Amino acid sequence: MRLLLINPNISDEVTTLIRAEAKRSAAADTEVTVLTAPFGVAYIETRMEAIVGAYASLQLAAEHGPQHDAVVVAAFGDPGLAGIRELLPVPVLGLTESALASACLLGHRFSIVAISQRIRAWYREVVQANGLEGRLASIRALDRPLAAIGSVQEEHGERLVELCERAVAEDGADVIVLAGAPLAGLARSLRGRLPVPVVDGVSSAVCHAQSLVSLQPGHARRGSFAPPPAKPHRGLPDAIGRLLAAARP
Amino acid sequence: MRLLLINPNISDEVTTLIRAEAKRSAAADTEVTVLTAPFGVAYIETRMEAIVGAYASLQLAAEHGPQHDAVVVAAFGDPGLAGIRELLPVPVLGLTESALASACLLGHRFSIVAISQRIRAWYREVVQANGLEGRLASIRALDRPLAAIGSVQEEHGERLVELCERAVAEDGADVIVLAGAPLAGLARSLRGRLPVPVVDGVSSAVCHAQSLVSLQPGHARRGSFAPPPAKPHRGLPDAIGRLLAAARP
Amino acid sequence: MRLLLINPNISDEVTTLIRAEAKRSAAADTEVTVLTAPFGVAYIETRMEAIVGAYASLQLAAEHGPQHDAVVVAAFGDPGLAGIRELLPVPVLGLTESALASACLLGHRFSIVAISQRIRAWYREVVQANGLEGRLASIRALDRPLAAIGSVQEEHGERLVELCERAVAEDGADVIVLAGAPLAGLARSLRGRLPVPVVDGVSSAVCHAQSLVSLQPGHARRGSFAPPPAKPHRGLPDAIGRLLAAARP
Amino acid sequence: MRLLLINPNISDEVTTLIRAEAKRSAAADTEVTVLTAPFGVAYIETRMEAIVGAYASLQLAAEHGPQHDAVVVAAFGDPGLAGIRELLPVPVLGLTESALASACLLGHRFSIVAISQRIRAWYREVVQANGLEGRLASIRALDRPLAAIGSVQEEHGERLVELCERAVAEDGADVIVLAGAPLAGLARSLRGRLPVPVVDGVSSAVCHAQSLVSLQPGHARRGSFAPPPAKPHRGLPDAIGRLLAAARP
Amino acid sequence: MRLLLINPNISDEVTTLIRAEAKRSAAADTEVTVLTAPFGVAYIETRMEAIVGAYASLQLAAEHGPQHDAVVVAAFGDPGLAGIRELLPVPVLGLTESALASACLLGHRFSIVAISQRIRAWYREVVQANGLEGRLASIRALDRPLAAIGSVQEEHGERLVELCERAVAEDGADVIVLAGAPLAGLARSLRGRLPVPVVDGVSSAVCHAQSLVSLQPGHARRGSFAPPPAKPHRGLPDAIGRLLAAARP
Amino acid sequence: MRLLLINPNISDEVTTLIRAEAKRSAAADTEVTVLTAPFGVAYIETRMEAIVGAYASLQLAAEHGPQHDAVVVAAFGDPGLAGIRELLPVPVLGLTESALASACLLGHRFSIVAISQRIRAWYREVVQANGLEGRLASIRALDRPLAAIGSVQEEHGERLVELCERAVAEDGADVIVLAGAPLAGLARSLRGRLPVPVVDGVSSAVCHAQSLVSLQPGHARRGSFAPPPAKPHRGLPDAIGRLLAAARP
Repeated sequence: MRLLLINPNISDEVTTLIRAEAKRSAAADTEVTVLTAPFGVAYIETRMEAIVGAYASLQLAAEHGPQHDAVVVAAFGDPGLAGIRELLPVPVLGLTESALASACLLGHRFSIVAISQRIRAWYREVVQANGLEGRLASIRALDRPLAAIGSVQEEHGERLVELCERAVAEDGADVIVLAGAPLAGLARSLRGRLPVPVVDGVSSAVCHAQSLVSLQPGHARRGSFAPPPAKPHRGLPDAIGRLLAAARP
Repeated sequence: MRLLLINPNISDEVTTLIRAEAKRSAAADTEVTVLTAPFGVAYIETRMEAIVGAYASLQLAAEHGPQHDAVVVAAFGDPGLAGIRELLPVPVLGLTESALASACLLGHRFSIVAISQRIRAWYREVVQANGLEGRLASIRALDRPLAAIGSVQEEHGERLVELCERAVAEDGADVIVLAGAPLAGLARSLRGRLPVPVVDGVSSAVCHAQSLVSLQPGHARRGSFAPPPAKPHRGLPDAIGRLLAAARP
Repeated sequence: MRLLLINPNISDEVTTLIRAEAKRSAAADTEVTVLTAPFGVAYIETRMEAIVGAYASLQLAAEHGPQHDAVVVAAFGDPGLAGIRELLPVPVLGLTESALASACLLGHRFSIVAISQRIRAWYREVVQANGLEGRLASIRALDRPLAAIGSVQEEHGERLVELCERAVAEDGADVIVLAGAPLAGLARSLRGRLPVPVVDGVSSAVCHAQSLVSLQPGHARRGSFAPPPAKPHRGLPDAIGRLLAAARP
Repeated sequence: MRLLLINPNISDEVTTLIRAEAKRSAAADTEVTVLTAPFGVAYIETRMEAIVGAYASLQLAAEHGPQHDAVVVAAFGDPGLAGIRELLPVPVLGLTESALASACLLGHRFSIVAISQRIRAWYREVVQANGLEGRLASIRALDRPLAAIGSVQEEHGERLVELCERAVAEDGADVIVLAGAPLAGLARSLRGRLPVPVVDGVSSAVCHAQSLVSLQPGHARRGSFAPPPAKPHRGLPDAIGRLLAAARP
Repeated sequence: MRLLLINPNISDEVTTLIRAEAKRSAAADTEVTVLTAPFGVAYIETRMEAIVGAYASLQLAAEHGPQHDAVVVAAFGDPGLAGIRELLPVPVLGLTESALASACLLGHRFSIVAISQRIRAWYREVVQANGLEGRLASIRALDRPLAAIGSVQEEHGERLVELCERAVAEDGADVIVLAGAPLAGLARSLRGRLPVPVVDGVSSAVCHAQSLVSLQPGHARRGSFAPPPAKPHRGLPDAIGRLLAAARP
Repeated sequence: MRLLLINPNISDEVTTLIRAEAKRSAAADTEVTVLTAPFGVAYIETRMEAIVGAYASLQLAAEHGPQHDAVVVAAFGDPGLAGIRELLPVPVLGLTESALASACLLGHRFSIVAISQRIRAWYREVVQANGLEGRLASIRALDRPLAAIGSVQEEHGERLVELCERAVAEDGADVIVLAGAPLAGLARSLRGRLPVPVVDGVSSAVCHAQSLVSLQPGHARRGSFAPPPAKPHRGLPDAIGRLLAAARP
């Protein structure tokens, strides 16, 4: 299968992290493509930045999604996910919902460990939008500036482990979710070091995308994820326009 | 005060409706400006369309917001609202949250009456994101095609009244919220015809914007609505870049 | 418009604070009247005291409400609010719901800062009754005796500021709600000192009352806020009896 | 033990129903006293009427409660309950919370069957205030005028049975709660006729009051149900003043 | 009446504690029988152990329940409760739901004080399954090893009192629930020492069982607590088989 | 990998359905074993039956689980799941949680279509225990007797399709979950017939089990899913005793 991962941000070094972890996670016959947003910010921490990332992801998804069997919005927070899901006739997944699905299959309550204090409010709203606040034990985050978004794991690794351990000891976490594409691969490298299961978004999304392609559950032709209804539009990228036109009966 | 309302959609006829109702609702010394999105769709019913409307609104808000005392995202569903609130140092309001604030001050449970079946899922998610699902009695909607988005009130007026009455009689609504900019002004023209209070988004947002400007509550310098932190970005509209730069200490 | 604010308590000095802030907040053509409860306690902290305040407010509202365009129950906690709303054909607002409406238009999560430890349980139950516990970050309160209810701001001002700052730093508050009529005017005098928007109940209620009068949403003739149905009663204040009789078809 | 039941309404015929069912439900050594509110309405359906009933109950409880071992506020909806609980050093119970406690021990979800359409909104708010909306299957109610509040059971008995049966068949009720003091005794007379357990408020409150007296759990000296703190008051009934004074350390 | 309490665990010393407190709590004409599980663990702290305790309780209940007027599953956490309730035509109660019912009649929010850290997750899930998480102030627990399950009260009594006091002072508990059959009787011996009401499961369950027998609410013949439908089964204890057969119409 | 699926019921024909769908769903290198409960009922509809199925599953899991890489409790409702997860050092999944995880990755709200009216209450409680009631659109079920549990699909296929379509049209389902092992394989055979995605439990569980094995998230050594603590036990199956002993440090 052909799997497209979209980095909604402009950071090539994060794209590199995503690609490496996606390839490590994918089955032998899964062909992984990772694209970087042509515009936007280095990494999303706020709702404003998520608006930009959502639109950039939508454009890439509209242009490249139809040539793939599944699409992953590869930023924690899942910017644009639900809208892209309406537009494409293939499974579309996000890092947050994928990591949460993994976590929910491994324990009852999970803690999210993240890369900045600011990012926590957005993450909490995303967990709530997923209807899973009842299973959220806590969101803990680094409280120091990031020297470079591509080397957070190296720079802050021990501090991140410490946050995980406190989430287990103090917050009652059964599972740890390492949040954010900049942490892609960290769950893998921490294997065995933490006293509870640990998952991340990229590896979870790759696995679940493969599962959904395998399950062939079908696509929405009715309901709230059916393609958007035909109506006048203007100034949209051609790829979006083509998909909207194709959806008209 | 100078009040900017942003129609996140390309529909000039809806902009006209918004402008008329905003002027009828505004105080004598409120100067009303209404802008139409330069790109997007005729009206938003889906999450995909909301991504587009959010980005278009963000651009207009970044460019024109700083010259105003308050900004209203003038589509029910409030596309982009929370992100724009982070970016601008003035009050930013949405039609949904404004209408819901009015409704909550008039009764306990409200019903939303909307213009299409498809739009209901998005509206419910927005009510939930506002944390107000506990006060939502129902969402009822027209189930017939709209001949023109600018004349929904004329075309479907009696059917809309009927939906309102059923919401009161069958769903337990204490208040009716007429949803969607295409219905701007309908609450005013229905005065006295409905057995419970009725509000709409445009008039509510204008009044509440005036209140917030009057209250001068201050703007967030910390917390999750402080300006987005400085970081590399690329390809953003100049106005957004300028605001981000200005927010840097 | 004629706006009636009812202090549900017997404290004239709090009435003075309410009146001052209401006049500062009101539009030029709003005529402000503030009445003090003829019986009750100095200020409400408990559910028992709220029963008394509710009944006192109901009596004043029944007697004086019909001569006004809007009525505000001017104690945080809104004693009697929903019942008075049923009885009067004009908008009726409370300090809590008004401050919360303001707060919700300024950010996502709010903290309430209050004047006593004991008062917190009642406030939380009121927030829950408003269906807004999902947006409540915390309730913080003074933990020292109040020398005089009319001079809490002077006596405990710096401690209140400190509570506000901790709510932002530790509880994730996007907005601060200064709770209780004894703090009327404090939000105004703290302008610029706090890192997030700050609102209070009196100024919010005045603004929203003006908005509701302006919106003319109509009054409930059916549903749960219609006038109470006709039935035998005994020993009620004449004003209540007159309103009940007037409501009979 | 001496058990006081307070009818918050002026209806002597309902007091008679309450007394009869309380005596049938009480243990041999329980001495039952039932008092009727000296002012108020015939029966409470609305929030406004509940304000009156709460204040009337508070007065009776303050005057007569100290001579009893437990007090029951004998109207469904429990007007004044939480406040009276703060004031008295003995167990204080309400019909709603008592019937719900019984229902929760008999099944998972309960339906409330009530005497008027109007009353449903208030009942739902009371269930929510009890934190039990997750176990509420439905509230069904008579939709016809009541000829006399003291003979609802005779007049509408078959219709009430039908509402119960529909609650089981259509709403998924595991237990039926017959709501309202005017239905006192109906659960007893319907024994064996309904396909699920059925409880009412008066008999439940009597049994639970006896249990709480037997358990001797102690009274709150701290926390939110401790006696209201000492403070100036004016115009309160003497009995309330005495209790407030007695609570001062 | 004949009351059967089932200790779902193998610990005879806990059975002794249960029996003593049950007899102290029961009415003069209540005949108390307490049975110990023939297989299982010493005390349940985990979901795995609850599976075992549920099955052991089911067997004892099926064999001995029909000869009693009410049955109590006498472990906090209520293993097997809902299933046994389906099977038996008499009231079936659990310690948790009974203690919570008592607590809810005494205050608004309760804290649970328990015997081990590990047990907290299970207890919280049980409170949630009861739909009462909105009233849960906290769960506090001993953090030291238990020398013997039958002497926890003697060994850790002062530490338990300290946990109760912290729950009141720091967590806002209105009522304390002493959790776990090994603490049976502690509420009684702590009378007067705690600043809020305190209840335990055994005494609450005995009182509520007596109430339900007295109320005679009837048993479910329809709905989700009706006897399980007839169907093939194999290898079930004879007593279960007999009850299933008896339930067939 | 070696995957064990446990049918908690005694129905060999359902085991055959499970095995067939598991093999169709599994990767080429997944070795599928399906075991049938040695005691219990034909299929679980009630909480009582779930107690039996949980204990039977626990026994099979303890005996056979350690020789496998992942275990699936193959009845919708997931009897015993959380307890078995504590006991085994490999991933343990249930049909319900697996199908719900799939559904949540495909849309926002799901409906469950089930084989009997009685089963609905249990399923709803399981969805609530998973914290996903906010995403449950409805539970619809067959209302006719089942001639044989192994041929429900053939006997009631068209009626099941009709229930699915009504869930989409009337309940707002974005995704359909076909519930119950007797429906294993039906999602596959309905491909393309339904207007929204459709999933079932067996295929979902197989895919997610493979994913969890691939992700190697680690097992809980602390927290609420760590192995049950050492303590006296009696009469447990040897396999359980061995696992408990092995878990002791």
